[in-house]
Amino acid sequence: MKILAIGANGVIGKAVVSHLQQDHQVIAVGHSQGDYTVDIESKESIQSLFEKVGKVDAIISMAGNGQMGSLDEMPESAFLEVLNNKVMGQVNVVRQGLDYLNEGGSITLTSGQAANHPMPGTTAITMGVAAINAFVATAALELKDGKRINAVSPGMVKETMELWGIDSSTGIPAKDVATYYQASLDGQYKGIVFDAVGGAI
Amino acid sequence: MKILAIGANGVIGKAVVSHLQQDHQVIAVGHSQGDYTVDIESKESIQSLFEKVGKVDAIISMAGNGQMGSLDEMPESAFLEVLNNKVMGQVNVVRQGLDYLNEGGSITLTSGQAANHPMPGTTAITMGVAAINAFVATAALELKDGKRINAVSPGMVKETMELWGIDSSTGIPAKDVATYYQASLDGQYKGIVFDAVGGAI
Repeated sequence: MKILAIGANGVIGKAVVSHLQQDHQVIAVGHSQGDYTVDIESKESIQSLFEKVGKVDAIISMAGNGQMGSLDEMPESAFLEVLNNKVMGQVNVVRQGLDYLNEGGSITLTSGQAANHPMPGTTAITMGVAAINAFVATAALELKDGKRINAVSPGMVKETMELWGIDSSTGIPAKDVATYYQASLDGQYKGIVFDAVGGAI
Repeated sequence: MKILAIGANGVIGKAVVSHLQQDHQVIAVGHSQGDYTVDIESKESIQSLFEKVGKVDAIISMAGNGQMGSLDEMPESAFLEVLNNKVMGQVNVVRQGLDYLNEGGSITLTSGQAANHPMPGTTAITMGVAAINAFVATAALELKDGKRINAVSPGMVKETMELWGIDSSTGIPAKDVATYYQASLDGQYKGIVFDAVGGAI
């Protein structure tokens, strides 16, 4: 399969690209480096990416910025970044990417476990990931030509926790998260949110 | 109680105001008419409203525009209206309103059943209501001074279905929806999403 992987430079992105390129042609796209670059807040940038890449068999988005902060002190810009980047960025990748997705192809977006497990300081990111989960469930009902859409909702990733210097014993290794993206790609799932919280699927 | 009711002119808003003013002082606020008016997309307009109204015991928001349309044909502006109005409008009512909410006071937002029951043509509104549900669950963890926040998630309202000329036999009467707002107000619930789908609570 020819797979477009957007957000390929993050901890999850690198693991997914590494996992999938064993069996597939993976085009790795980042914000500032990669086979191509894209700014998912810009529809023009997304369009330009698809025109360069052409038709693909799968689109995987691991892109989208989150922001943490307290409800009363976080600036409004933090909420807007989540809505414009994590939410509308991924929504526009879907809306614009459908024209470049081959029959029977799949799209996989990335949300996060904050939607299921609210914690103080996560109001902005929680809204964003809940919106993505709801979006894929609904969008899946409208896709034609055998096209499918799902989301992976990762828990805290072990390598990220190590970078942050916090206890990583409960984290899921990035290579295990990657197996959920593969499940979305290979299976016949539609409108599913994969809770990537345990070991490999 | 002194209750600020924003979005008082809609089908649900009228029923809630009518229900609550039997026992409380209700300040009815609409976009273009009411005791006061507010544009929830404008932080300045929200601030001006709270400065005029002063301290309150409860804030109820039944405001926020939704948009329906197909994933591939709906203009991006429809998504942005949901995110800017239904989502950020209500979020800013909370963030700015907390300073005007008396100790032990409650806030009730409005989401909708699209979050639980995706249907074709509802990708934009579904994202918005899911975001609101996730927001109240998370924000509730951060509120101090006994302040509480919940959401009411109404199903299709009988009177709205009648206005649309569709079979309304499965709709919930607006006066029954109003009882869920009262439950959010009177109970000690925190971070709850009330599924207003059946009869009165």
